[in-house]
Amino acid sequence: MTEPFDTVDLIRTKRDGGTFADAEVDWLIEAYTRGAIAEEQMSALAMAIFFRGLSAPELSRWTAAMIGTGERLDFSSLSRPTADKHSTGGVGDKITLPLAPLVAACGVAVPQLSGRGLGHTGGTLDKLEAIPGWRAKLSNEEMLRQLEDVGAVICAAGSGLAPADAKLYALRDVTGTVESIPLIASSIMSKKIAEGTGALVLDVKVGSGAFMKQPDDARTLARTMVELGTAAGVRTVALVTDMATPLGLTAGNGLEVAESVEVLAGGGPADVIELTVALAREMLTAAGRDDHDPAEVLASGRAMDAWRSMIIAQGGDPDADLPVAKETEVITAPSDGVLTTLDAYAVGVAAWRLGAGRARKEDPVQAAAGVQLHAKPGDPVRAGQPLITLHTDTPERFDRAKEALADAFGIGAEAAERPVIIDRIG
Amino acid sequence: MTEPFDTVDLIRTKRDGGTFADAEVDWLIEAYTRGAIAEEQMSALAMAIFFRGLSAPELSRWTAAMIGTGERLDFSSLSRPTADKHSTGGVGDKITLPLAPLVAACGVAVPQLSGRGLGHTGGTLDKLEAIPGWRAKLSNEEMLRQLEDVGAVICAAGSGLAPADAKLYALRDVTGTVESIPLIASSIMSKKIAEGTGALVLDVKVGSGAFMKQPDDARTLARTMVELGTAAGVRTVALVTDMATPLGLTAGNGLEVAESVEVLAGGGPADVIELTVALAREMLTAAGRDDHDPAEVLASGRAMDAWRSMIIAQGGDPDADLPVAKETEVITAPSDGVLTTLDAYAVGVAAWRLGAGRARKEDPVQAAAGVQLHAKPGDPVRAGQPLITLHTDTPERFDRAKEALADAFGIGAEAAERPVIIDRIG
Repeated sequence: MTEPFDTVDLIRTKRDGGTFADAEVDWLIEAYTRGAIAEEQMSALAMAIFFRGLSAPELSRWTAAMIGTGERLDFSSLSRPTADKHSTGGVGDKITLPLAPLVAACGVAVPQLSGRGLGHTGGTLDKLEAIPGWRAKLSNEEMLRQLEDVGAVICAAGSGLAPADAKLYALRDVTGTVESIPLIASSIMSKKIAEGTGALVLDVKVGSGAFMKQPDDARTLARTMVELGTAAGVRTVALVTDMATPLGLTAGNGLEVAESVEVLAGGGPADVIELTVALAREMLTAAGRDDHDPAEVLASGRAMDAWRSMIIAQGGDPDADLPVAKETEVITAPSDGVLTTLDAYAVGVAAWRLGAGRARKEDPVQAAAGVQLHAKPGDPVRAGQPLITLHTDTPERFDRAKEALADAFGIGAEAAERPVIIDRIG
Repeated sequence: MTEPFDTVDLIRTKRDGGTFADAEVDWLIEAYTRGAIAEEQMSALAMAIFFRGLSAPELSRWTAAMIGTGERLDFSSLSRPTADKHSTGGVGDKITLPLAPLVAACGVAVPQLSGRGLGHTGGTLDKLEAIPGWRAKLSNEEMLRQLEDVGAVICAAGSGLAPADAKLYALRDVTGTVESIPLIASSIMSKKIAEGTGALVLDVKVGSGAFMKQPDDARTLARTMVELGTAAGVRTVALVTDMATPLGLTAGNGLEVAESVEVLAGGGPADVIELTVALAREMLTAAGRDDHDPAEVLASGRAMDAWRSMIIAQGGDPDADLPVAKETEVITAPSDGVLTTLDAYAVGVAAWRLGAGRARKEDPVQAAAGVQLHAKPGDPVRAGQPLITLHTDTPERFDRAKEALADAFGIGAEAAERPVIIDRIG
């Protein structure tokens, strides 16, 4: 077959600062998915894009082309509007767990296609799999039925959505080309647009535990994604939120489920509640259902009811005991004072090393492993009090986890105030 | 086997403007050659190097590491000093053919390991293969013996020299990462240093028919290569020479052999003579034998004697008729005036299309195909006089060759003077 474009010419075009025509972008994505563009050619192009970027029209076309390589879900048959949330990933970020049932309880269907954890950030599916019997894999029909009956579904994204992205992401992961805002934005948005949600709220994290370390980069990524979503007809809004310190008091699969259930029961850490309610409010507004007050619905117990239905619908037992780690070890405060910092990245790495995360996609995770915090920045602490409890089934992992935490916290006279929500881009 | 470095970390280091330690460079080249670094990783790194460059110490180490992946030739047993020439490639660049025997006739051994043509530039081996019986492939022992007996050898570079470069060059060729000065310089110099010559003269071409289009880029490449050679103990000097117009009056394998023999016989085009003598002078000086005047040796016929011996030693018949193309077509001057320009790139493409060159390494070439010029910039022309003769065995190629030449020349009132030798970097 004669190809309409020459791959090397296109790589050089981007390398030298040029712009692709629509037909060129379409061909690049289609030919790469088909295998007519070799992996080493696409990695060189991805690196050229890292340096040169993609213009807004190029990016929009690139995203559409990736969507075009796969199927698109269609929720238009549902009796209620749909809204989805996507977080760029952080440490202790269990927000999806209380959020999906909360929004469902407010009358908006939440089709939450989620992934697994890799490296120091956890994955929503890994967390829910700590619940005995719960299964991540649903057919499109099961998903639709559950959205109609329960209103919320958290399940594995099938390989049918934007397969070009799966191939490209795996390549970027091994070629040092992940950290490109247009490539990140198109990767996320191709899947979210293909998923067929009517409204989308993005939680763009910034700080040591997040992908974006600088607020300006996070804002740029947020703006880029909001533009892509809006252009594709999805009502999209983004919150830029803090990930300098972990969300809540837990990082680890079963530990985070337990904390999420606490929030649904009306308790839980203030930051988790604040962010859950804020994101729910955005989702309801974007879905045109801001007649509900999520804080009130949370307090009423109706979100908990939706949670229980959602877990049961996917085979889980919401009343089953969550797994408990075989071993724990406690890190105590070395001095009196106020906890000034608690580094999200260090906590994420510690939880990962304890067994909560994986280094490679095919690795198993421990349901009970993780890190439990007993104080957050701003809290007063006393010398000798428990600061962090480490959980694992494999105690030989404690040493490396403690290494990760060696410089993770500071104790001083007072802590700077850090808002949970830094910015809103709509 | 546990690797001492992480490939993705190293790609990101270069991508973000960092510098590699010696051990990192050594490992990158060694692991890539061994296959522990994937092609898609090396192409991303090559693109990062395109944007970020390599520092002088990095480049020197990179070159040494590439040399270290293969064998090094050793000419120290020869009774005379060695000098080699390398041209970055141009159109009608047959200089090696008269130059090697000329320098040999002056008492300096010339071990000229050469390549084949690709795209619009010809290859020295392709040219010599137009001579009936001549063979490009010699063993290291045959090469040494011929250097001692004849003083000059032009033969195929074995795959034993810097095999990392062969692998990396093939990758760069398909990933749009050829045009990087440090990668070009290390590619050329790794082979030339491994070849074991004591002195090296570089002919860095600049102009439409060359790789470098701008004199400043050519100077930078020349300087980079001279530094690498000097640091490796090879007496190295570079001439930056014009490639806006073809060298001599021929581009094509057999046609260029005939023109080279003319030069050795005391005739031939002025620019070919000038550059041959200038490069010979540099080689003799670099080899410490500037007691010979190459212009005098050329006039004396001793260079022709060395040529004949060199061709015979490699199985060729210097008295055999060169192949003649089955068909020719003539392009005539459209008006009276002075030929102002004759574009090297266009002539190179035309010769290639006529069958003198190849699109892929495995393609055959026609020995008799090519372009013959009847005037050079600065020459007066009359309307209707022959300007260019096209030669090919496959006349269906004429049309595409003429297309390439459509805008290749200009006729005007007077032509700007263009020196053959633009700069010298020593």
